[in-house]
Amino acid sequence: MRNIKLIIEYDGTAYCGWQRQANAVAIQQVMEDALSLIVNGKAVLIASGRTDTGVHALRQVANFRTDSKISLPGLQMGLNSLLPPDIVVKDIDEVPLEFHSQKDARSKIYHYRIFNSPVRTALQRKICWFVHRPLDLEAMKRAAHCLEGTHDFNSFCAAKCDVEDRVRTVIGASFEREDEHMILFRIEADGFLRHMVRNIVGTLVDIGNGKIPEEAMPGILLARDRRRAGQAAPARGLCLMEVKYE
Amino acid sequence: MRNIKLIIEYDGTAYCGWQRQANAVAIQQVMEDALSLIVNGKAVLIASGRTDTGVHALRQVANFRTDSKISLPGLQMGLNSLLPPDIVVKDIDEVPLEFHSQKDARSKIYHYRIFNSPVRTALQRKICWFVHRPLDLEAMKRAAHCLEGTHDFNSFCAAKCDVEDRVRTVIGASFEREDEHMILFRIEADGFLRHMVRNIVGTLVDIGNGKIPEEAMPGILLARDRRRAGQAAPARGLCLMEVKYE
Repeated sequence: MRNIKLIIEYDGTAYCGWQRQANAVAIQQVMEDALSLIVNGKAVLIASGRTDTGVHALRQVANFRTDSKISLPGLQMGLNSLLPPDIVVKDIDEVPLEFHSQKDARSKIYHYRIFNSPVRTALQRKICWFVHRPLDLEAMKRAAHCLEGTHDFNSFCAAKCDVEDRVRTVIGASFEREDEHMILFRIEADGFLRHMVRNIVGTLVDIGNGKIPEEAMPGILLARDRRRAGQAAPARGLCLMEVKYE
Repeated sequence: MRNIKLIIEYDGTAYCGWQRQANAVAIQQVMEDALSLIVNGKAVLIASGRTDTGVHALRQVANFRTDSKISLPGLQMGLNSLLPPDIVVKDIDEVPLEFHSQKDARSKIYHYRIFNSPVRTALQRKICWFVHRPLDLEAMKRAAHCLEGTHDFNSFCAAKCDVEDRVRTVIGASFEREDEHMILFRIEADGFLRHMVRNIVGTLVDIGNGKIPEEAMPGILLARDRRRAGQAAPARGLCLMEVKYE
């Protein structure tokens, strides 16, 4: 038995997210279908975590166990020739049998792009959120800073979330300007609740456009109440950039 | 009568190029349909030049004449609300009646992106050419340099080109590395022949991968024979960045 780790890049636009679902096409399903053809049998992929409908990934991590003796380059090339253009295996590695992409993950880094301009973008429309009202980036930076550290993030958790413990540690949450209009939000945490990044970004944008006062952020966090936070940002601006392991 | 200049961004993936065609959807057609609704009558757009099927533009320039008294912001917002997500009017201006987007253009800048990596890209697949064989970027830079100046570019002109005079002045032709895998080619000229940038990039890639010796470039240019140059690069890597006027 071997344990194989894959680094996967995908454009999430056409998918219902990573995880298999009944009535929609998931990235996991497309990948497992391709895998099972290559290793000649059922293959179950364990990912570092789900990504939502329309969310992208530059380096999602997933592993699977197999008895196949196929070489790693052969497996990677075979998979990439079967996968559609919007999914690709960037890297492949054999790992100890006990390695588990989800349980062993120590932290994850997400990027979220906001296109802040009076006029929308055509070329980058699938990788960012178009916000036409001017944003106060400095206020957003200060509010983002409040999120760093260990907190109960229930205020930023989707109603449907089935996880009991909502305490997470945000290692870093910062903004930078990529160019005149594109704003990049970078967040690293030891784990994320459902819709957490999108609810955080939506709230920060509400702070940036003055709908929520900047000073309200610590109170929103302490309230542990989703109704206190702002809107949810759309999925297309979000990208899973990296999963860190020990 | 007014003359209105538009700066247009488009993702060319879904279109047969700028220019109206009988059996396919062109960007010009989509734009003129939207325009005619706003100005309440036929509108004919004159662009700085055609772009091929699948080619993108960050700042294509086009103008049209109209008797409409609509305000410029009203016209821009109206157009952008009617246009599909892959086309947007970035800027709008009223110009002297004699301004002609094509005839008055002094130079144009194109970018071409090459993704040089053993493994393809999912997220950027629509804006670059995936070249898996390693490229000698220094050799490509030197060969690109030979193109600068005034030459007959017939060796890089599509067979179907109906222009007699094939002498153009290349103001600059250079490469830079955007990141580990993405190579950006930037070319500015006083005008471009049909498929000229794509034939130049294809030839430069053939030089980069050793299929054509670097020293052959001046001879290819002098030959004025399309058969002497290399392959044509695919349209999706090409983007019209800027059109310069006096």
